[in-house]
Amino acid sequence: MWRRSLPDPFFTGPGLNRADALRAHPDRIAALALHPEARLLAWDSGAPALDEDGRLRWGAVEGNPPLFLGLDREVPHFSSLPAGDVAIDSRAHFGLLGQLDVADAPIFAAALSLANWHRRHGFCSVCGQPTQPNRGAWSRACASCGAEHYPRVDPVVIMLAEHDGRLLLGRQPIYPARRFSALAGFVEPGETIETAVARELHEEAGIAVRDVTYLASQPWPFPSSLMIGAFCIADSDALTIDHDELDDARWFTRAEVEAALCGDPAAPFLAPPRFAIARTLLDRWVAGLERVAA
Amino acid sequence: MWRRSLPDPFFTGPGLNRADALRAHPDRIAALALHPEARLLAWDSGAPALDEDGRLRWGAVEGNPPLFLGLDREVPHFSSLPAGDVAIDSRAHFGLLGQLDVADAPIFAAALSLANWHRRHGFCSVCGQPTQPNRGAWSRACASCGAEHYPRVDPVVIMLAEHDGRLLLGRQPIYPARRFSALAGFVEPGETIETAVARELHEEAGIAVRDVTYLASQPWPFPSSLMIGAFCIADSDALTIDHDELDDARWFTRAEVEAALCGDPAAPFLAPPRFAIARTLLDRWVAGLERVAA
Repeated sequence: MWRRSLPDPFFTGPGLNRADALRAHPDRIAALALHPEARLLAWDSGAPALDEDGRLRWGAVEGNPPLFLGLDREVPHFSSLPAGDVAIDSRAHFGLLGQLDVADAPIFAAALSLANWHRRHGFCSVCGQPTQPNRGAWSRACASCGAEHYPRVDPVVIMLAEHDGRLLLGRQPIYPARRFSALAGFVEPGETIETAVARELHEEAGIAVRDVTYLASQPWPFPSSLMIGAFCIADSDALTIDHDELDDARWFTRAEVEAALCGDPAAPFLAPPRFAIARTLLDRWVAGLERVAA
Repeated sequence: MWRRSLPDPFFTGPGLNRADALRAHPDRIAALALHPEARLLAWDSGAPALDEDGRLRWGAVEGNPPLFLGLDREVPHFSSLPAGDVAIDSRAHFGLLGQLDVADAPIFAAALSLANWHRRHGFCSVCGQPTQPNRGAWSRACASCGAEHYPRVDPVVIMLAEHDGRLLLGRQPIYPARRFSALAGFVEPGETIETAVARELHEEAGIAVRDVTYLASQPWPFPSSLMIGAFCIADSDALTIDHDELDDARWFTRAEVEAALCGDPAAPFLAPPRFAIARTLLDRWVAGLERVAA
C-alpha cells in the first residue's frame, strides 16, 4: 500500500462543493450572490491572484458574477471571466504554482481551466454565431441554433517506462536547462489510456511497451487538461527519438533519479517541479513502485 | 493478476497504425491515397458500415479523401467525413455494436468519434468563421484567425461502489426495461479522476466513497468520450437518489450480479451489453476484484 504513504499529485483535493444541481437554476445562483459572505475570486494577469501566503485572493461580490465556483459549507464562491488573450503555459503562471497553497490548488485549477475555455469559445462551433455563458458559466449556450457547449477537458497520458531497472525520461524544447521529465501526449479519439501510452512511447521514443498501469491523475489548467499518469515496461532500451517532439530522451538509473529528486547539483538532470504530476510519478517509482507493477 | 485472465473492454486494441507524423505532410498523405491497395471506409446512416460478418466495409479510394485513418502494414486507410445530422447514442448504432467484430472496434471508434466531432465543429469557436479539416482531418484550421482546433475527447468516470459485499448500480431514464448499470459522469475542469468519482456518486446517490481504484478504460464514440472505469468503497449504504439523473439506484449482491451476467431470466436486473465497459467492470468484480482493491 505504498500509495498511502506518498503525497497525492498537486491540484488533488475536493476544493469547493460544486453544488452542480444549482447550475440549472439561475434564480438560485443569483440569490446566492446576495449572501452577505459571498466571495469573488480576484484575478491578476489572466490567472487567479494569490496573497503573500500563496492563498487565493477573494473580495466581496457586487452584482451577479457569471461563474459560480461552488460552496464552502454555506458560503458561495464566484468569479468573473477575465477577457483578453493570455499566454498559455506561461512561465509566469508556472511561477505562481510554486507559491500556491495546496489547499487552494483545485479551486485555482477549476477557475483557470474554465476561464481559458471561455476565452477561446465565444462562438458556436455548430453555426458560427456568438454564445453566452450558461449554467453558472459551466457551459455556453447558442441562442441562434440552440446548441449547448460544455468545457473541454483534454485527457493527456504521461508515463514512466522502465527497462532493466532504468527509467526513460525526455526533454521537450521548451523545458528549462537540464530538465528531464516523463513523456506525455494527448489521448486521441478511439484510444484507451493504455493504447495511447503505447502509441506515444512508440512515436516519440521508438519503444514497444507492455503492462501499462495507471498510477494517478491531475487536472492541468494550461489550458484545460486531465493528466493521466501511468507506468509501463519496455522490452528493449534501443531508442529512436522523434526530434520534432523531443530534444532528447535517455534512460536513468534509480540512483540518478533519486539524486535529481533530492536536488543534488551533481545529478545528471533537473527533476520536474513539485506541482507537476511527473514529480509525483518519480517519487512513487523511487519509493518502490516496481513491487506494485511486477 | 486477475486482469490477465479476463477480456479487455470492447474497443480496446491497437487498431491501425495512426502514423501521426504523416499528418503534417499533406503531400505524403495525397501520395498514399494513390496506393493501389488504399482503402476507403464505407458509411451507412451516419456510422461506419459493417458487412455480414461484422467487419468494417471498405472500398477503393478515388480522389483525395479528407480523413487519413492510418496504415495496416503498408496499406493506407482513408475515410470521407459524412455530413448531415445524425442522432447521437441512437439505438441503431448500439445495434451495430452488437455485430461489430472486436478487431475492427478501435477503428470504428476512431472514425465515428472524429466524424461526430467534425459534424459539430464547422465553425471556429474563437472567431466564428468557417474552419476546414487539417492534418488528415485530425484537426480543423481557421484561415480567418489562425486558430487550430483538435478533436474533443471527453473523459467520463464510470464506477462501481461496493458496501459490505454489495454493489451500487443505477438506472438512467433512457435505458431499456430492467437494465441497471454503473453510475457515470463527465470529469469537470479542476478534477482528478478520483475526485470526479467521489463527486458523481455523492451527487447522484448521496454516498461518500474512498479508496478509488482505476480498473480499465474504453473509447466511446457517442459522440466522443473516454470512459474511465473505477472501483471504490462506500462506508454506508444509505442512498439519496438524484431523480433528475437516475430513475433508480440499488445495491445488488454478488449472486444477483452473477445471475444478471449469465442472462438468468430470474435475475433482478438486465446486465449491460458486452460492448459497454460497465459489463467489463462487472465481470471483473464477480471474478474477484475485492482481492485487488482490499
